[in-house]
Amino acid sequence: MDVVETTRELQARADADRARGRRIALVPTMGALHAGHLALVDEARRRADVVVVSIFVNPAQFDARADLAAYPRTLDADLAACRGRGVERVFLPDERELYPEGYQTWIEVAELAKPLCGASRPGHFRGVATVVAKLLVAAKPHVAVFGQKDFQQLALVRRLVRDLGLDVEIVGLATVRESDGLALSSRNVHLAGEARRQALCLARALDAATSAVAAGERRRDAVLAAVREAIAKAPLARLDYAELRDPETLAPAPALLTAPTLLALAACLPRRDGQGEVRLIDNRVLLAQHVREGRS
Amino acid sequence: MDVVETTRELQARADADRARGRRIALVPTMGALHAGHLALVDEARRRADVVVVSIFVNPAQFDARADLAAYPRTLDADLAACRGRGVERVFLPDERELYPEGYQTWIEVAELAKPLCGASRPGHFRGVATVVAKLLVAAKPHVAVFGQKDFQQLALVRRLVRDLGLDVEIVGLATVRESDGLALSSRNVHLAGEARRQALCLARALDAATSAVAAGERRRDAVLAAVREAIAKAPLARLDYAELRDPETLAPAPALLTAPTLLALAACLPRRDGQGEVRLIDNRVLLAQHVREGRS
Repeated sequence: MDVVETTRELQARADADRARGRRIALVPTMGALHAGHLALVDEARRRADVVVVSIFVNPAQFDARADLAAYPRTLDADLAACRGRGVERVFLPDERELYPEGYQTWIEVAELAKPLCGASRPGHFRGVATVVAKLLVAAKPHVAVFGQKDFQQLALVRRLVRDLGLDVEIVGLATVRESDGLALSSRNVHLAGEARRQALCLARALDAATSAVAAGERRRDAVLAAVREAIAKAPLARLDYAELRDPETLAPAPALLTAPTLLALAACLPRRDGQGEVRLIDNRVLLAQHVREGRS
Repeated sequence: MDVVETTRELQARADADRARGRRIALVPTMGALHAGHLALVDEARRRADVVVVSIFVNPAQFDARADLAAYPRTLDADLAACRGRGVERVFLPDERELYPEGYQTWIEVAELAKPLCGASRPGHFRGVATVVAKLLVAAKPHVAVFGQKDFQQLALVRRLVRDLGLDVEIVGLATVRESDGLALSSRNVHLAGEARRQALCLARALDAATSAVAAGERRRDAVLAAVREAIAKAPLARLDYAELRDPETLAPAPALLTAPTLLALAACLPRRDGQGEVRLIDNRVLLAQHVREGRS
């Protein structure tokens, strides 16, 4: 497994691969790899000859310095996990490599960055869009694999790629969960005891909404009421948002749900070390089997 | 000569060229080709095996609808000129191709977009940065050639390429001029008679500054006074700006000039048809032979 530290070198490797007709897949990560990331790596392997994993904790997408400082860093374990999964190439740039002196170029995906996590985390998606574009430019992949847990990020990356005309296929992979249903997240290491137990309220809220819809409920506000009720059963959880939106445009859902609808949640729970909160997100597309009216 | 209308098709051609080891050069234009553009094409030819000329009047970089509507369009002549110059490929996308429904991704080069033309034309450089990035993504060139007449644009494109890590070489080519010194511009067709004659004041102002510096003048304000005096001799010309700035960062020049310094001018003259004004720009790097202190 090669560890590459510069964009130029990564591009040279990509050019050589492409000249030999080898397909390249990129899995962009911020490290602290867990089974969710490894599922992305396995999917990348199925779709390409060369799997590139990037590991870069991107300062530009952290709206809070404390969150950036607290973000878990487990580089040795990450490299071992990549090696164990047969990854060909790890891209490990430092901050100066991706944001050189005088750096001033920013990419905005204007509408998709506004709601949900964009409303809670100003500047977050500008940082995400910019670094994802830079990683795609650096790795020159044929395909890039992202988790659906960060649903808004995935929607934004799809739009970014379409708008800029980047010739890469974007693949979204289903969220990987703990056996009790908690969505895997690098931030879960900050949870323990009762807070860890109550973190399950997000998954339970998704289930509550799914059950309501399965029982025939189509009123947006009634579905959201079921969601809030599930969250309220976890008194340690502070709900940031619970919203129903169009899965592609993220426009607010209508009062009566008639098409596939994204249920997106964010909630904060107390950290095990007492130093503030952990912010968790989760989501599910309700009515996913419904064909959109007027669309194929 | 092939005329390609979609990004996908242009990328497929580029991939085929690159697989055969052929170097690609891009000359981005808005059409209305003149001898300045053809000099860019000739430079591209010297540096590559395949020359791609893009022709796209980019709505996103026009801050005024009237300017967009009035921008000259001479497609048949442009295609004939490209053919005559041995261009292999013309990229001719329509607006929907580059800005599809729901388009919302914008690239900002924050600091370089602020002064000079950025101050007069809000949003202009956001449109430039975005379309240039899209054209580079579409054509996948090894080298792209731009005119130095649009000096700020060239500085911004260099920064964009460095910041995003795009692996393309950016070449800037000296401004081509009419025999009397007027910088070639597609907008010159709107000038006639006395306004055309007085448009020379920009080139004369550059000469006045060059003479002052050659005579030993190093005081910024004295150089600018010589510039304004030259413009004032053309009563039809309305000066937009005359500024001395760092050629790379575009930071304001110090009170005493000690290093290569950009003199940038913009002035408006009455249109031949009486419908408003034509905005012209010109520039020169003064003290160009001086080595910057502390730099190679």
